[in-house]
Amino acid sequence: MRIAELSRLTGVPVPRIKYYIREGLVDHGERTQFNQATYDESHVKRVKLLRALVSIGGLSIAHTREVLETLDEPNPSIDYVLGHAMPRTDLEKPPRTDENGQKAAAALAALMERRGWRQPERESAGARSFVEAAASLYDLGLEHLLDELDAYASAAESVAAADLAMVARMREPAAILESAVVGTVLCEILLTGLRRMAHSNASLRQFPDPAAEPG
Amino acid sequence: MRIAELSRLTGVPVPRIKYYIREGLVDHGERTQFNQATYDESHVKRVKLLRALVSIGGLSIAHTREVLETLDEPNPSIDYVLGHAMPRTDLEKPPRTDENGQKAAAALAALMERRGWRQPERESAGARSFVEAAASLYDLGLEHLLDELDAYASAAESVAAADLAMVARMREPAAILESAVVGTVLCEILLTGLRRMAHSNASLRQFPDPAAEPG
Repeated sequence: MRIAELSRLTGVPVPRIKYYIREGLVDHGERTQFNQATYDESHVKRVKLLRALVSIGGLSIAHTREVLETLDEPNPSIDYVLGHAMPRTDLEKPPRTDENGQKAAAALAALMERRGWRQPERESAGARSFVEAAASLYDLGLEHLLDELDAYASAAESVAAADLAMVARMREPAAILESAVVGTVLCEILLTGLRRMAHSNASLRQFPDPAAEPG
Repeated sequence: MRIAELSRLTGVPVPRIKYYIREGLVDHGERTQFNQATYDESHVKRVKLLRALVSIGGLSIAHTREVLETLDEPNPSIDYVLGHAMPRTDLEKPPRTDENGQKAAAALAALMERRGWRQPERESAGARSFVEAAASLYDLGLEHLLDELDAYASAAESVAAADLAMVARMREPAAILESAVVGTVLCEILLTGLRRMAHSNASLRQFPDPAAEPG
């Protein structure tokens, strides 16, 4: 198929597809004539995957490239791939070691202890995200927002168990890894949407406001 | 204080603060002499808030402006403010109405029915995020990742209940709204980090892999 058809089938505009090709995220199509290229089902699949990660999941091009590279490594572990697929705050910066950074790290260590989780590596993407966000709450004097950490951790346990139950039903390693990446990114968006709807639903009961606009 | 001190206290580089001022997100300091300005505690608080929303939360400048404007409206409802604070996929585009968009919307409607939640407005940010992400899973042939939606919804209910319990302990409306915005953005990052750590923790048990690198 021509690039116009690839665009139609994936819902991704032609200039965007050309950009992905220039960035090396999509293979060049097969050249049939001067300045013409044809694409096949593998291109359709790849462009749809990029659409999911970039347009819906909000990953940067650099981050997307890194995630796709982990999938191409020989025998990557699921844990390794998931660690790279995680949406990230500014992880290039060193972890915070100031007073509020330390308080946040201590809150995390105490939470892990209470829940019986293994203590995460300080440098892991999950721990970094947690500590950055919690330290920022301390910065703002909003540490009361950490009061319900156990409820959050319990919800995260349920979600992780559901995620792994899905993965466990699969057999083919490459499919497991692709599902793990896409699931990490897209199910994050799903969960965000559900959390928002759950707020709306619960707050309507708790703070009735007939004039409330749907958010 | 001078801008250098404002930078030191907030951890935000001077050029970034100047950018926020040019964008109208931070008030100009009080002019004391030609080309000099002084800043006070209100600036420290505002710059820290921007750091939380932009650097940690990953909101765009345009989105941040919109969120801060909702806080300045007379008597905004919590539901209204939360709807605007939500991290978003590409909501400028019209909602998907193609086959997979319809399947996703049907999956959401069925889930809401099973959980006894009120049906969300099609245009609401929560429903939009859910439908975009779910439609994308159908596009990729990964709709088995939707098998555990009830577990996700149940986790979202727990998180929303925890969020509202925190809000209910507060008294002052402006503080409630600020907490709601910051909590929506930063606790999303917290939850993402916890989900990632919970994966790591659970997958270590289910798929032991001593060579796994911490992600």
